[in-house]
Amino acid sequence: MNTTAHDDVLALTRELIARRSVTPEDAGCQALIARRLLAADFRCEHLRFGDVDNLWAVHGGEGPTLVLLGHTDVVPSGPREAWGSDPFVPDIRDGVLYGRGAADMKGSVAAFVIALERFVAAHPDHPGRVALLLTSDEEGDAVDGVRKVADVFRKRGERLDWCITGEPSSTSKLGDLLRVGRRGTLSATLTVHGVQGHVAYPEKARNPIHQAMPALSELAARRWDGGYETFPPTSLQISNIHAGTGANNVIPGELQVLFNLRFNPNWRAEQLERECEDVLHRHGLEYQVRWHRGGEPFYTPEGPLRATARAVLGAHAGAAPEESTGGGTSDARFIAPLGAQCIEIGPVNASIHKVDEHVSVADLQALPALYQSLIERMLLA
Amino acid sequence: MNTTAHDDVLALTRELIARRSVTPEDAGCQALIARRLLAADFRCEHLRFGDVDNLWAVHGGEGPTLVLLGHTDVVPSGPREAWGSDPFVPDIRDGVLYGRGAADMKGSVAAFVIALERFVAAHPDHPGRVALLLTSDEEGDAVDGVRKVADVFRKRGERLDWCITGEPSSTSKLGDLLRVGRRGTLSATLTVHGVQGHVAYPEKARNPIHQAMPALSELAARRWDGGYETFPPTSLQISNIHAGTGANNVIPGELQVLFNLRFNPNWRAEQLERECEDVLHRHGLEYQVRWHRGGEPFYTPEGPLRATARAVLGAHAGAAPEESTGGGTSDARFIAPLGAQCIEIGPVNASIHKVDEHVSVADLQALPALYQSLIERMLLA
Repeated sequence: MNTTAHDDVLALTRELIARRSVTPEDAGCQALIARRLLAADFRCEHLRFGDVDNLWAVHGGEGPTLVLLGHTDVVPSGPREAWGSDPFVPDIRDGVLYGRGAADMKGSVAAFVIALERFVAAHPDHPGRVALLLTSDEEGDAVDGVRKVADVFRKRGERLDWCITGEPSSTSKLGDLLRVGRRGTLSATLTVHGVQGHVAYPEKARNPIHQAMPALSELAARRWDGGYETFPPTSLQISNIHAGTGANNVIPGELQVLFNLRFNPNWRAEQLERECEDVLHRHGLEYQVRWHRGGEPFYTPEGPLRATARAVLGAHAGAAPEESTGGGTSDARFIAPLGAQCIEIGPVNASIHKVDEHVSVADLQALPALYQSLIERMLLA
Repeated sequence: MNTTAHDDVLALTRELIARRSVTPEDAGCQALIARRLLAADFRCEHLRFGDVDNLWAVHGGEGPTLVLLGHTDVVPSGPREAWGSDPFVPDIRDGVLYGRGAADMKGSVAAFVIALERFVAAHPDHPGRVALLLTSDEEGDAVDGVRKVADVFRKRGERLDWCITGEPSSTSKLGDLLRVGRRGTLSATLTVHGVQGHVAYPEKARNPIHQAMPALSELAARRWDGGYETFPPTSLQISNIHAGTGANNVIPGELQVLFNLRFNPNWRAEQLERECEDVLHRHGLEYQVRWHRGGEPFYTPEGPLRATARAVLGAHAGAAPEESTGGGTSDARFIAPLGAQCIEIGPVNASIHKVDEHVSVADLQALPALYQSLIERMLLA
């Protein structure tokens, strides 16, 4: 990688940070990128759903497709005063670039663009397709972003073989972790109905807290599985529970509960819903439950993409990366069901979603070559 | 009972209802009553604690003391429009007197006054003492009312043998129920401490909901006893439970629970507190609990007062009353520990604490003779 590429990724990252693209705003990031990729002979398609901008940029023809997946939106910065410098004015201090989105994930997005430009410049007639998919709704509801784009792709039969997400996955140095899967997430909003009454006359009431507790205890205590490959065990957590209006002499008529499951590929959301409802039924609860399927789990088993990524990261970091399926969710959950093998490679994530978010300038400058090397090894091999 | 007494109790009840004595206001009720009883040679003592008025009026000398116990405060009326007539303007329609406090318990208080006036007029040199104790804080916190007066009595060694509370205890006709005890009440405000975290990393958090549920289930499911004499079994009810701030991806750091025990004379509050904390300890909870002892239970076993009351009510109603220990709490809980046998006799309670609270004029007119008969049989026998 020459000095020009080093300057280029830094300049583009700074341009992106300067755009206040707080989710679901894109703030012109995708237009900027589309102009560059159009100049590099990509075909660009803007897919806007609701308040959300999505960009699909493709280069090449027949053959396997490798997609780089990212987002231009960022989480809110919080108060300006809490930051060492303005979160939307990129600032370099001691070899570190500060700004909201520096690590999550405007740095990766800029590196994607540079890698794509350089790849197609070097191999204008490469086999297969390289593509960039960007959304402005990864940090928000994630309803009108990649989820909707995936629906469009499904309808048109778009072929996707490999997907590299730029989520900041490294833990202490760039390339020390290769994400090869993510758990699924499933949320429930549960209402348990009882009969309100006075605490002095429990026989005339039906306490929904008392009724629900054994069922909830059973769900919380259940060992769902022992893990799956490198996935941690499936876990259910009750995040909210509310009943009663403050009076200590009234048995409440209703209990509200929110719970969330993070699950590995042993399960599909539908099965978990059935298992949970079986428990609620068995305990004789009168209830309503609203399920929200946040995303199925995905997993990329050993194969060419994973092996190539391991080699590229190992060459950069000097040691084989940890291959992990931990962490929260990412947009890869929507791309994996289309049949693509998905991995995630990005900068160190220690500062993401915090004040003084930052990325090492050296790491940022190393990223385009990593992505470009991956593209070359997958498409030109 | 002659027509004068009939008119008298009705007139006094109307005067009391017209005074807006919403708890803890007395609104001049006790001054009105004190003036009448002073005229009947009672010694009157005003005991004011905080915002609360208490009246202690006594007639007689050495010997056993029979106390009539009541309250001049009423619960709020709610919106005027919901009532058929102004809740603070007594109104008679079809032989029924409407107004806030008509049944709970300005009617009983007026009947007490008439009964006392007539008793001392007929027996100016009666043996023992008759007394009236009134508070303006029975419906509220019950902190500065009879609880405080009982402390004063305890210090001065005031002798109290029998206590008749005028709480509306009848269920469908006057005299069909004789209250011979009440359960105790004990409240707990429990905070269970966990460690907040992200639902995706349960191993880094400690969910206080999950931790508390088995302990709370055990407390809620426990069979504390099988009842005591005519008391229902001791019961624990969780009235409030709260954790979480709405976000479904955060394991909360704290769980707040309110629960209440209604307990019979098998238990004292202190024992129940110990039993509950044993369960919390055994489940390894990190918790804080604040106990509020609302009152110990009381019970008046078979004896002269209960037998006399049974006879008087039976003669009026034409059938022996049900002898019950059910219902909520009353100020008798503070008098019973002084060594007094306590019973409760009053009008039908179907409309209390509701809109269009009312008492049958015929029942109201029958009450003074019932109370007077009880006083005569207990003191003159």
